[in-house]
Amino acid sequence: MPSTDPAPDVPRDRRPLRVVVAPDSFKGSLSAADVARAVADGVRSVVPDAHVVQRPMADGGEGTLDALLAVWGVPAREVSTVDAIGRPHTARYGVSGDGRVGVVELAEASGLPQVDDVALQPLHAHTLGTGAAASAALDAGVEEVLVCLGGSASTDGGAGLLTGLGARLLDDAGAPVPDGGEGLAQVVRLDLAGLHPRARSVRWRLAVDVTNPLHGERGAAHVFGPQKGARPADVDFLDGALRHWESVLAAETGVHVGDLPGAGAAGGVPAGLVAVVGAGLEPGAGLVADAIGLPDDIAAADLVVTGEGSFDSQSVNGKVADAIGALAAGVPGRPPVVVLAGRVLLPAEQARAAGIAAAFSIAPGPIALDDLLDRTASRLTDLAATVTSLVLASRR
Amino acid sequence: MPSTDPAPDVPRDRRPLRVVVAPDSFKGSLSAADVARAVADGVRSVVPDAHVVQRPMADGGEGTLDALLAVWGVPAREVSTVDAIGRPHTARYGVSGDGRVGVVELAEASGLPQVDDVALQPLHAHTLGTGAAASAALDAGVEEVLVCLGGSASTDGGAGLLTGLGARLLDDAGAPVPDGGEGLAQVVRLDLAGLHPRARSVRWRLAVDVTNPLHGERGAAHVFGPQKGARPADVDFLDGALRHWESVLAAETGVHVGDLPGAGAAGGVPAGLVAVVGAGLEPGAGLVADAIGLPDDIAAADLVVTGEGSFDSQSVNGKVADAIGALAAGVPGRPPVVVLAGRVLLPAEQARAAGIAAAFSIAPGPIALDDLLDRTASRLTDLAATVTSLVLASRR
Repeated sequence: MPSTDPAPDVPRDRRPLRVVVAPDSFKGSLSAADVARAVADGVRSVVPDAHVVQRPMADGGEGTLDALLAVWGVPAREVSTVDAIGRPHTARYGVSGDGRVGVVELAEASGLPQVDDVALQPLHAHTLGTGAAASAALDAGVEEVLVCLGGSASTDGGAGLLTGLGARLLDDAGAPVPDGGEGLAQVVRLDLAGLHPRARSVRWRLAVDVTNPLHGERGAAHVFGPQKGARPADVDFLDGALRHWESVLAAETGVHVGDLPGAGAAGGVPAGLVAVVGAGLEPGAGLVADAIGLPDDIAAADLVVTGEGSFDSQSVNGKVADAIGALAAGVPGRPPVVVLAGRVLLPAEQARAAGIAAAFSIAPGPIALDDLLDRTASRLTDLAATVTSLVLASRR
Repeated sequence: MPSTDPAPDVPRDRRPLRVVVAPDSFKGSLSAADVARAVADGVRSVVPDAHVVQRPMADGGEGTLDALLAVWGVPAREVSTVDAIGRPHTARYGVSGDGRVGVVELAEASGLPQVDDVALQPLHAHTLGTGAAASAALDAGVEEVLVCLGGSASTDGGAGLLTGLGARLLDDAGAPVPDGGEGLAQVVRLDLAGLHPRARSVRWRLAVDVTNPLHGERGAAHVFGPQKGARPADVDFLDGALRHWESVLAAETGVHVGDLPGAGAAGGVPAGLVAVVGAGLEPGAGLVADAIGLPDDIAAADLVVTGEGSFDSQSVNGKVADAIGALAAGVPGRPPVVVLAGRVLLPAEQARAAGIAAAFSIAPGPIALDDLLDRTASRLTDLAATVTSLVLASRR
């Protein structure tokens, strides 16, 4: 939803100040929407007639679906499917107001938290529900599907997701293999005859913030398996299963995903989607920025304010601040990008290198974490006023 | 020492950025000079060719003499005199490089800390040594004498200071009264025949940061007496003595100081100097700013950075930040003034009302006081870099 210039021929210093507020959430404290509101209040306290665009952001992980629904201003859609261990589950997904973009979230449809009421099932857990949600989005006519990873319970190489889209994984007797990582080792053929008719004609964008490959020492099973309940023997089994799955995918599609950085995210989900539907992997924040029209907003801005709980080396490595810094650096006016954060751990020089003009902590001085958490919103408002005041004074 | 414009006809955006760094000290942590150096380092890390003028400030209280000597680049001068209770004492004072301005500091010549090795003598303590230092400055030919108050041990209405300048306080037998507040009650005549010949032809500027009158409930004896050792009976005696002293001054000079706000500072020192030599009372920070040529520096600046340990409601009430905000607001370019502080307690709106565009804490997030004190210099450098970067980005 790009903002339009209300008066393009008015000289810059006569126009109302245009500010884009596009923060991530402050985890454990405020949602991205709440952060954006607090910052907008601060900006308007200094410039009452400022044109303030609130664009709560997300980094492509858990919570991204809700963030996009909020910015799009549309309700969640629902599909009846199963959770990561096959129990009935209603999964939410989203379709943008213009019907062009669909979003599914692994944490929502096949997430670990939904199945933590029983013992972890590292071999059996799967992503079928996410595939069902994606299939529903395709039914709705979207041209682009965003898949938010993170929070996964499974190590299935994306097999469940493909199954949800209509593919069949068959064993040497031509029978469907069991769901989850345990079935991968038995697959001899991938039957794509029943794949959703639109699955290969839309654009698939996967929000991936890790560079781990599908298998091996840095692969999905070894690095992420244990936190999903895999014991050492399970890890070895799953690593071998993903290696076999890679060869099946290559044989069926001609696409080799064995060395692809990021293919090991979320139990290997990218492997199946890259090979079968040509999905692309991107840092989640940039993908979300596109989905909410942020590039056009930033191109028209005089000031861009973002924020997150902790501004550190991760922040400029594919996260929200990094995506926004890159967008601002790429537009002619180069509007200054300011980060407001609970903690600022990145030196100023490294922030500048990422296109961030300045990063400030909301801490008003020595203060305990709990006290600062209690005051996050009011401190954000005051700090946003301070930053706006300095930007204005510097423009004179 | 005003800076001169190196190239006045170069357009603003081609000139090197001109930054004035004029902080107060961070009490208990860094001197004003150390703060200025840390901030200058941060500015230069972003703009290596910036024209950075370091002007460590002081608020007219203890430490102001050293601050002025540092900026003037001259050594302290010394005079052999007595301390607040009459013991031999070498008092330091200063004369600016051009010989025009002299500075004496009550805390240095007649201060409480120098006499805290013995029991406090609230009735006997006096300001004779400060008068001796001022007399030496007059001998040196200065045209203006700055008197920094604060840290006084006495409640003598400035009688000692006048005595040091050559005046005599006589009793009804024509004999000199005892030094200190105890003698004031016996004065019937003020003999100015021996007053230093230049005492009434130079400009006296007193750094006063309180509004207390000479006597009464809010006067010098009642409010400040107890911290100098005065018991209730002493307070009553001293209050009466100051009231009597006021009438003697009025009879001798025609000047009534009974209702003068600030006359009660430092045991009533302003009373004697206002009546006898026509001294003016000013907030200390503005007086120091003038003494170091800050108004000219600020008039030529693109950015002014100041700072102090705690930025609060006191800061915009005659302290360093207030003086600098007022100076910047009065010059045509209105360079933005930024405060860097250990704590920022003043809301952004109130800071702006005082001419401060922005105030930021050096706290990088939740942090304990001791940890922040350990990192003050490095945090100042990083925060100064951040602010410089934002100002530059906003000027585009």
